[in-house]
Amino acid sequence: MGTIINGREKAKETREEIKNFVADRIKASKRVPSLATVLIGEDGGSISYMNNQTKLCNELGLIPKNIKLKEDVLESEVIKLIHQLNEDYSIDGIIIQLPLPKHLNEKNITSAISHKKDVDCLTDINMGKLYKGEQSFIPCTPQSILHLIKSTGINISGKNAVIIGRSNIVGKPTAQLLLNENATVTVCHSKTVNLKEICSNADILVAAIGRPGFVTREFIKEGSVIIDVGTSMVEGKIAGDVNFEEAMEKAAFVTPVPGGVGAMTTTMLMKNTCEAMMRNAY
Amino acid sequence: MGTIINGREKAKETREEIKNFVADRIKASKRVPSLATVLIGEDGGSISYMNNQTKLCNELGLIPKNIKLKEDVLESEVIKLIHQLNEDYSIDGIIIQLPLPKHLNEKNITSAISHKKDVDCLTDINMGKLYKGEQSFIPCTPQSILHLIKSTGINISGKNAVIIGRSNIVGKPTAQLLLNENATVTVCHSKTVNLKEICSNADILVAAIGRPGFVTREFIKEGSVIIDVGTSMVEGKIAGDVNFEEAMEKAAFVTPVPGGVGAMTTTMLMKNTCEAMMRNAY
Repeated sequence: MGTIINGREKAKETREEIKNFVADRIKASKRVPSLATVLIGEDGGSISYMNNQTKLCNELGLIPKNIKLKEDVLESEVIKLIHQLNEDYSIDGIIIQLPLPKHLNEKNITSAISHKKDVDCLTDINMGKLYKGEQSFIPCTPQSILHLIKSTGINISGKNAVIIGRSNIVGKPTAQLLLNENATVTVCHSKTVNLKEICSNADILVAAIGRPGFVTREFIKEGSVIIDVGTSMVEGKIAGDVNFEEAMEKAAFVTPVPGGVGAMTTTMLMKNTCEAMMRNAY
Repeated sequence: MGTIINGREKAKETREEIKNFVADRIKASKRVPSLATVLIGEDGGSISYMNNQTKLCNELGLIPKNIKLKEDVLESEVIKLIHQLNEDYSIDGIIIQLPLPKHLNEKNITSAISHKKDVDCLTDINMGKLYKGEQSFIPCTPQSILHLIKSTGINISGKNAVIIGRSNIVGKPTAQLLLNENATVTVCHSKTVNLKEICSNADILVAAIGRPGFVTREFIKEGSVIIDVGTSMVEGKIAGDVNFEEAMEKAAFVTPVPGGVGAMTTTMLMKNTCEAMMRNAY
């Protein structure tokens, strides 16, 4: 019987660290980190994300700066705003809520963010640094995944890590982070032929494909660590990529959905904002 | 008995394409591509590389611009020169010969190259684009590797590709290129535990570790494609990472050393320079 990796609990620990960090800054009469969030239009998911971020900023002592722009704002105006935020010494991190309204070019807009304030790791420069193994912001989901794997206490070096999914925001950067930790890393995807066989040799298995319950007992190696990044909606409930009960039968550690990876990501955004402040050092 | 992948022959084919491209430009009274090479100091290897590049430029009709700087040049002067080359409309590609003299910071200097002229893919921006799967310059060695694999006519999609070595200039970008071609990709390295077993399941095996003759018959799957990126010096001769005779016994296709990957790289630099001209379109 496996052990549940409790994402909510781990997130709470990290939040305590951030709280203490901010409290120490206040005691020392230093300024506290600030996160600017740009919301364009009225996307329900984005509004909910922004509200969560604001709430967490307030809880931890960071300063949230929310900027709402109209649905029909010109691209040039958005970019001008981002440049102002880049220059603004009171802002440490910048988040643009995605998806954007259709008339706006996501690439043009995210590229305008200074790589020094790109706490979501959307710019080419930060992505390049991440792959070179240089100091860079680590995107929040992969960072949460690595944190939860490490929280089990296993030694990642030399382990076979298999990632199902190769997105730019989850699969590829997670592969890179595990490679940096000296895992032997395999990236699988929709064209992979012998998926079950490959997964069943994985000491660490990360599922990030968005197919509810796809990973069943035959995919799972005895005593392994299973990280479920799936967040599909099934009958009004959030569902992971892993069959949780079957995973718990064979694996040593399993993240639940909800309460696993997803429970950590906004906390990691706060952590990145603190890091941005320390790195930019003003 | 395997078939030798003849890198010299494949390079010749690509060179013919470049020659025709340049000849067509001349016929149409258009300007031809130009490659600026910056050499600092007197490193023997670097001088030899630069001479090879110049020779190949001349052979194909590209314009070489060689700039030699003294060993003790100031970093600020090198960066100023690079900025001038970035602004110079008559230059399409910029190469800085590495290694640099010790007093110069490689990161500061390579970062100064405009990503539009970075034909060696040294900048963070181009590395980031490569990993996101966006249009970017592909570093010459990984590009040669992919070209030689494709030249065998095999369908890469769904194949198990294993790369031994995780350097920023060979292993990591090669993994990315093969992932873009829909291979299932595993990256192995010095900390990998069951290396032989993993390699022996590889339909495509890329060895890039610099250990002469390391890959023997037990590493090789029957009917596979073996790409040898090793270039060690053994008793005054260049030696690959693969035991060539043993590979030829089991694999379907094998690159020799010399005359394999290494025979293509300078040609790929010329190809990137032509692409830089077409993309920047002036």
